[in-house]
Amino acid sequence: MPQLTLYTAKVCPFAQRAEIALAEVGADFKRYEIDLSNKPEWYAPQVNPASKVPALAYGGPDVPPDEPSPESIKIPESLVLLQLIPELFPESSTLIPKDPIVLAKARLFIESFSNTFIPAYIALLFRGEEGAEDKLRAALDTVIQARKLEGKKYAVSDEFTIADAAVVPFIARAELLLAEDLTKAEAPRTSKFIAEVKADAKYKPFWDYFDLLKDRESFKATWWPDAITSAARSRLAAQ
Amino acid sequence: MPQLTLYTAKVCPFAQRAEIALAEVGADFKRYEIDLSNKPEWYAPQVNPASKVPALAYGGPDVPPDEPSPESIKIPESLVLLQLIPELFPESSTLIPKDPIVLAKARLFIESFSNTFIPAYIALLFRGEEGAEDKLRAALDTVIQARKLEGKKYAVSDEFTIADAAVVPFIARAELLLAEDLTKAEAPRTSKFIAEVKADAKYKPFWDYFDLLKDRESFKATWWPDAITSAARSRLAAQ
Repeated sequence: MPQLTLYTAKVCPFAQRAEIALAEVGADFKRYEIDLSNKPEWYAPQVNPASKVPALAYGGPDVPPDEPSPESIKIPESLVLLQLIPELFPESSTLIPKDPIVLAKARLFIESFSNTFIPAYIALLFRGEEGAEDKLRAALDTVIQARKLEGKKYAVSDEFTIADAAVVPFIARAELLLAEDLTKAEAPRTSKFIAEVKADAKYKPFWDYFDLLKDRESFKATWWPDAITSAARSRLAAQ
Repeated sequence: MPQLTLYTAKVCPFAQRAEIALAEVGADFKRYEIDLSNKPEWYAPQVNPASKVPALAYGGPDVPPDEPSPESIKIPESLVLLQLIPELFPESSTLIPKDPIVLAKARLFIESFSNTFIPAYIALLFRGEEGAEDKLRAALDTVIQARKLEGKKYAVSDEFTIADAAVVPFIARAELLLAEDLTKAEAPRTSKFIAEVKADAKYKPFWDYFDLLKDRESFKATWWPDAITSAARSRLAAQ
């Protein structure tokens, strides 16, 4: 396998998707932390013009990550990496279901989560937007209904797939930051919301699913709650 | 192979992606035309709750398409289908590149096109939005630069892949409808724009690429310009 260097950030849920994939396949790779509040000058021109994480440098010579080689191929986008990594190590994980129909269901599950949970969570976290809680409740419902339809252990399969890896970084950050009121909403608005949806029997299947996900080794090995809460505190203090 | 029924519409670029994929793999399937201006009542509840095309009914008993069986699996979303169809017929087409890095590049090409060309085209077509031409010019440039970087016959490969199938329905509709001023912009604004970007040597690599794409049998077999212009005329007359 050519060399792999992941440019990533502990705080970023998109980046964690790629880190979970690398942990699942057991890849040997270099991990380079990008400080999102103070990105190195070489990052955008030499790694990712969009200046976002994650990005993977694939192949080329074995160089220090902060001196990226023009000979490596640079690949951005969390969902592209979440599929590419298991495709590079085809027998090493259950991330890509072997049945194309189950794989299609995994992609639809991700698409649905991206259109419901993620925007509602961002609206609450970064803008304290009115009505965001209702949208988040609806998103939990969507996850519950989708899983009920399939009747499997994880999202679309009894195995851990890209569907699960794509969603757990967001659910984990929502639980952590909303419960600590580390959002643009005024305390105790979001901690109250989290306590409510955790106590409500209606949402129990959602939290049972999250319990399964956060117990996964690949999640635990790539989860840095202190970095996440500390970045949220700095962001809020700066506003 | 279990039965396949595609719910589609001649006018819809998203649906044409799935039709091109089915033509490329040579699948035996039932094609059912949905009138988007007058959708059958059973379509949303029994096939696609989002009420959009394309949607594929996979498996279940051999039923008439307008009496869909609850036993078939219903799969919506053009990009999900564009990957699923060649995955169901793995040796029948070049749509999914065998090299995972080339496949990642195909996905990135589609992502980039979806974020540049498609919104600019929609802004011009449906809203006659000011400045949409500049965004469309930038989108053509993005395609040109991406292909130049790869130096292949098609978008990311010397073979026809999902990247090409995903973009040709939109480019073909843009060329057709803008040239005939069948848009919300006042004539001759868009026909003038199309004539300009076709005459400008700077954009020649883009039109050369489009010439290749529209020459593909799977495109020609799924391209109904009369239905497209006639639907655009009705839509504009109704406004």
